[in-house]
Amino acid sequence: MNNTLVILPPAEHALRAEKIRRQLTATGADGVLIHTYVNIYYLTGRIFTGYIYLPVQGDALYFVKRPVGMSHEGAVEIRKPEQIELPGQPHKIALELDNLSYTAANRLSAVFPYAEITNGSGAIAMARAVKTPYEIEQIKASGIKQERVYRKIPKLYHDGMTDIELQIEIERLSRLEGCLGLFRTNGDTMELFMANVLAGENADSPTPYDFAMGGRGIDASIPVGADGTVIRPGESVMVDANGNYTGYMTDMTRTFAAEPLSDQAMRAHRCSIEICHRAEAMAKPGTEASAIFHMAEETAREADLHNYFMGHRQKAGFVGHGVGIEINELPVIAPRSTYRLEKGNVIALEPKFVIPQVGAVGIENTYVVTDNGLQCLTNAPEQIVIFE
Amino acid sequence: MNNTLVILPPAEHALRAEKIRRQLTATGADGVLIHTYVNIYYLTGRIFTGYIYLPVQGDALYFVKRPVGMSHEGAVEIRKPEQIELPGQPHKIALELDNLSYTAANRLSAVFPYAEITNGSGAIAMARAVKTPYEIEQIKASGIKQERVYRKIPKLYHDGMTDIELQIEIERLSRLEGCLGLFRTNGDTMELFMANVLAGENADSPTPYDFAMGGRGIDASIPVGADGTVIRPGESVMVDANGNYTGYMTDMTRTFAAEPLSDQAMRAHRCSIEICHRAEAMAKPGTEASAIFHMAEETAREADLHNYFMGHRQKAGFVGHGVGIEINELPVIAPRSTYRLEKGNVIALEPKFVIPQVGAVGIENTYVVTDNGLQCLTNAPEQIVIFE
Repeated sequence: MNNTLVILPPAEHALRAEKIRRQLTATGADGVLIHTYVNIYYLTGRIFTGYIYLPVQGDALYFVKRPVGMSHEGAVEIRKPEQIELPGQPHKIALELDNLSYTAANRLSAVFPYAEITNGSGAIAMARAVKTPYEIEQIKASGIKQERVYRKIPKLYHDGMTDIELQIEIERLSRLEGCLGLFRTNGDTMELFMANVLAGENADSPTPYDFAMGGRGIDASIPVGADGTVIRPGESVMVDANGNYTGYMTDMTRTFAAEPLSDQAMRAHRCSIEICHRAEAMAKPGTEASAIFHMAEETAREADLHNYFMGHRQKAGFVGHGVGIEINELPVIAPRSTYRLEKGNVIALEPKFVIPQVGAVGIENTYVVTDNGLQCLTNAPEQIVIFE
Repeated sequence: MNNTLVILPPAEHALRAEKIRRQLTATGADGVLIHTYVNIYYLTGRIFTGYIYLPVQGDALYFVKRPVGMSHEGAVEIRKPEQIELPGQPHKIALELDNLSYTAANRLSAVFPYAEITNGSGAIAMARAVKTPYEIEQIKASGIKQERVYRKIPKLYHDGMTDIELQIEIERLSRLEGCLGLFRTNGDTMELFMANVLAGENADSPTPYDFAMGGRGIDASIPVGADGTVIRPGESVMVDANGNYTGYMTDMTRTFAAEPLSDQAMRAHRCSIEICHRAEAMAKPGTEASAIFHMAEETAREADLHNYFMGHRQKAGFVGHGVGIEINELPVIAPRSTYRLEKGNVIALEPKFVIPQVGAVGIENTYVVTDNGLQCLTNAPEQIVIFE
């Protein structure tokens, strides 16, 4: 097809389309109609408002509402979904039913009265869970820039600074380094602004959101993260910042402090590093995601730190998650996961502890699964960093 | 009920609940089950992951998944929606079908096999479109802080600065002033990072998003806003920043420049101000939203600026929108709107122009509808501001 709309290299587009097609087989669909920005970005390397029909056999079709004028790039320009015409009237069409609103899904289904509708969200999520070499390069590029930011964080601190003041300077530094700011999440249980900076006991404040750590926030309308606490000697400052320097994110956490922390906190931090290093060696293609969680939990238990593992007053139910275009992709590293790792999975592992009177300690790295174990893409120093 | 979960003043909670109940009448529902964060925030003044059942008669019930431990505040703690039990088995339950995913809506519907399910999204949106005096105070507070930031913008500029560099300093200033950063939107056609700063001809780049203005962005994964253009004399810099200093936003745009712009651009900017001032006088309870759009368009036409009104290569189909917890609430100020203004509506009006070779000019203000017309809540100077 004469199509200039796809800005990915043609082989890359073909590879991603093929990965989706393979996953679609299980649904029996003749094709999938894609509407969400993240999946449009996945298939084309760009964002438009509209639809892509990716048939199991044949080339993709592009129906674009905005921006206007994309017909010369190979798109059919539409004003509303009712104008979508699919050749050959497919018998079974997959829609992104986990992400489209109920109203939108019904409206879209009604456009194809001849077709059975099925859910394609899971198939695309499974395809996206295994990154292509091209995607891994994007994630690596984000990781390098994020590392550069993290190395400068100790210089940002001054005595008497609050957590939110530090966060604002980290945000600025990240943006100057090229961070896009926007933080794409899947589902309806996450809201965050660019970073989670947790100082001292604020780390023990439960949050409504599905994050590993909490924090009160500075306003009841967004109860997570920094709450205006003054950073004090003897308390930890955990920085979990947004690593989207490309359309693909890295997720990295490091712990900072004005002076060395209590023995228990230092020990918990070393335990977090130990869990990551054990995971690096054990996680290979075929490893069960649940086994990594159990290893992490067991390592914490052996160190008698189980009560503080993944939170204290409120605990997270996972120790890691896939990351890519969105912060919470497959696989989830959780006790009941049935996922077995594949080469090309990119996962963030965040074995963290909340120590009373001290705060949150531990690290988070983003890794790609290789035949030899995990390769780390977020290479800032792992020990607790003392502010300069 | 012994309930400490609602942190709004009790009379304010009662007023909002009553406004929703009144709108629900048209749906015939016995109650509405609320899950989205924005509507949970509307009814309680806080955010949790879970559900509120607001019956047409009787007190609301709270089912909370996260944070844990809210039973002592009057909530029923649940792990999954299947644990929700509604007293008296209502015959007809409204769900937020415009916002819940298809999958989530079906799962939730299945919890109530005895009930007919209807859509409550529109009823809540209509209730939220008319702000209470308490909400208007929140919006005013945001407007005062946003104005403070805008007055400092001219000092941020230096020769040779790019649009994104300026934006980063505006972001920092906003955050230091208390901006929460997070930008809540309704629907699936908006993504933005905190501000839209458009310098020169970048303003004429069409965007996929449903914003009034465009911009290429700095990466294909988020094609809107600043693109790294160096700010040049003779070109405009439009700053449309995120005004969420409370859980309620103001929306304000001002235009800046390093030196006075072309006559046509200056004229278009004055036309934008003129449109706002005409709207301030004409928009009263009972005024049709569409009439304001037509007045704006007609004013632009009289000034022979119609080709540049609300965009040049790509035009927006509206000149204003409701604003509150989300940036795009009801009413929409658009040609086909059937909405008649009510006292307490809060609307942002943004009659903007994109002038070739110059860029975007015009202003945006947030107003509350009063018996005497519009009261402006975003009171920074309206003329084009020359950088210091």
